[in-house]
Amino acid sequence: MGKIKYELIKNDNGNKNIRLGKLITNHGTFDTPMFMPVGTLANVKTLMPEELKACNSAVVLSNTYHLWLRPGEDVVNKAGGLNKFMNYDGPTLTDSGGFQVFSLAKPKDITEEGVKFKSHIDGRNLLLTPEKSIEIQNKLDSDIAMSFDECAPYPATRKYIEESMRRTLRWAKRGKDVHKNDNQSLFGIVQGGEFEDLRKESAIETVKMDFDGYSIGGTSVGEPKDIMYNMITYATAYLPEDKPRYLMGVGEPIDILEGVERGIDMFDCVLPTRIARHGNFFTSHGRVNVKNARFKEDFTPLDDECDCYTCKNYTKAYVRHLITSNETNGGRLLSIHNIRFLIKLTEDIRDAIKEDRFNEFKNEFISKYKNGC
Amino acid sequence: MGKIKYELIKNDNGNKNIRLGKLITNHGTFDTPMFMPVGTLANVKTLMPEELKACNSAVVLSNTYHLWLRPGEDVVNKAGGLNKFMNYDGPTLTDSGGFQVFSLAKPKDITEEGVKFKSHIDGRNLLLTPEKSIEIQNKLDSDIAMSFDECAPYPATRKYIEESMRRTLRWAKRGKDVHKNDNQSLFGIVQGGEFEDLRKESAIETVKMDFDGYSIGGTSVGEPKDIMYNMITYATAYLPEDKPRYLMGVGEPIDILEGVERGIDMFDCVLPTRIARHGNFFTSHGRVNVKNARFKEDFTPLDDECDCYTCKNYTKAYVRHLITSNETNGGRLLSIHNIRFLIKLTEDIRDAIKEDRFNEFKNEFISKYKNGC
Repeated sequence: MGKIKYELIKNDNGNKNIRLGKLITNHGTFDTPMFMPVGTLANVKTLMPEELKACNSAVVLSNTYHLWLRPGEDVVNKAGGLNKFMNYDGPTLTDSGGFQVFSLAKPKDITEEGVKFKSHIDGRNLLLTPEKSIEIQNKLDSDIAMSFDECAPYPATRKYIEESMRRTLRWAKRGKDVHKNDNQSLFGIVQGGEFEDLRKESAIETVKMDFDGYSIGGTSVGEPKDIMYNMITYATAYLPEDKPRYLMGVGEPIDILEGVERGIDMFDCVLPTRIARHGNFFTSHGRVNVKNARFKEDFTPLDDECDCYTCKNYTKAYVRHLITSNETNGGRLLSIHNIRFLIKLTEDIRDAIKEDRFNEFKNEFISKYKNGC
Repeated sequence: MGKIKYELIKNDNGNKNIRLGKLITNHGTFDTPMFMPVGTLANVKTLMPEELKACNSAVVLSNTYHLWLRPGEDVVNKAGGLNKFMNYDGPTLTDSGGFQVFSLAKPKDITEEGVKFKSHIDGRNLLLTPEKSIEIQNKLDSDIAMSFDECAPYPATRKYIEESMRRTLRWAKRGKDVHKNDNQSLFGIVQGGEFEDLRKESAIETVKMDFDGYSIGGTSVGEPKDIMYNMITYATAYLPEDKPRYLMGVGEPIDILEGVERGIDMFDCVLPTRIARHGNFFTSHGRVNVKNARFKEDFTPLDDECDCYTCKNYTKAYVRHLITSNETNGGRLLSIHNIRFLIKLTEDIRDAIKEDRFNEFKNEFISKYKNGC
């Protein structure tokens, strides 16, 4: 069918920024707001596609930087693209590799051309450019690709952020010019750090290039929460109504709620699987660690209110035993629960928007979540 | 219902030692010969019970030594026993901890009372006795428990093996005397190393105690294959027709065939899951490592003849990518395949016995398996 289509279903009457929508892709349609699990290396750690579907997961993210290094974009392309390679028939999204180059690959050398760095796997010298990132993503054949951007650090000087943001605009243009996959949509990324006018400039100039959707980058890089929330407000003010908006790397339940309140449609984060491997899980009363001694003989589910495979079949005592014994099934059971928790949160958010009671829902959720168990 | 029942269905006309049978347990009935996957810590590494069932797996083993240390037999007991703890409704078998004490816990001090050793987890001083092993297994509430034995090393002097075997007989008696779970069956274990007369003595004396089944221990501890096969022959000659026979720790395809030829009904081994984590998988043409560079762009299943989940859905190139990227899903996909391979082998063996063509089947399988890819 070609590019994605976004349909705005309705706003919440209590706050017109809040959007209930629908994203139509070549691999299926899903409602927004939506949380998207991350399958860095063409698989969500410890889970297979059937398990993601059982969580009602609608989209899987993969990673350009990681797949470029292993197994190489040509292998994925020869397999028939990311969907066929990982035997997953739903929508896929790839990020540009920008974030990974800036977080994993050190030292790095940023020039107008792109970023020179050493592979974190074998130390090889590599150069990632806007064109190369798009070329790799074209070959991966995801439904949605991201423009190559600089994910600037926090804190940074205004001068640094300004120069970086403008270079990211030039990179976005270069990437768009070489993008050649008619079945793949391309998102632009709004940068500009904590500065309202720079976020505004970035949003306006990115929108001028007419992308299929818009991401907000440079959040969750260490900035205080109120600054992150402002970054979202500054950017979404200048984004068009008829295109999806994606807040990158955000997966804390409260941050998802704050994002939705500011007009965000899509979220992704490694958080639910990463914290799972260390024994952490979400509950409606806050985040808990299953290694806690009080769970040793607790034969109840992780969360009484949860409908996931783990909660339907296993007890805290069993999951605790697996985690403390370093059995990977422990992380698997917690990953299923955590992913389902965030997907369910976005389901509840959508129900609330339908009924114009998002703010009520948000306040109730947060007050319960912050009060703890 | 109480104890297990073994029914001999038929022998193979070509060799009357070979048995097709049926084992009836409190958690279901399964045909023998059967390969049983190992779930050391109340889970088969990387797999959940649904996946084992999809492999047609009929029994799961668990480990007394490991569950004693973590989470402790009382936790499992309070959960309602091993089945409820791990949410698995099929037959279970626990070994006595003997093998682990002798292989993992060093230094150790063997006395008539039992074995003193240090925990491999935290260095605590522990004492495992025949009575303690049975008490733990009673609490784990497996369908089949094992007597506590000394798994003697190879090579060892005749004098050592003789003394060890006779102590194992005394331990078997002590364990049987304290065994108190009417829903749990108890197996005796034949020892005696490579010595025909000692295996004979051990078998005869163990059978005199009238166990619900008989295991052959002290194999796969480094002895040459022909010596292992002789150990089986020496022991099975003195085992009753109406009780099941279990060859402990054996899972190589050819060893399973050699065991069946000598009258064995049950096999277990960590091999299929352990080799999987290192990238190895079984095929009808021998064992292969998926990390091999020739599989980088091989978009065919692991084994064309296999009907497992992995072979139906994934390619060598994808599994290779997961394994070389240290993604645990790689070991999971290979574990599914390897377990299914051994279960399927026992299915084919049973079909062959039904049709009195076991020897033909065995020769054909081995000649293909040994010739390699």
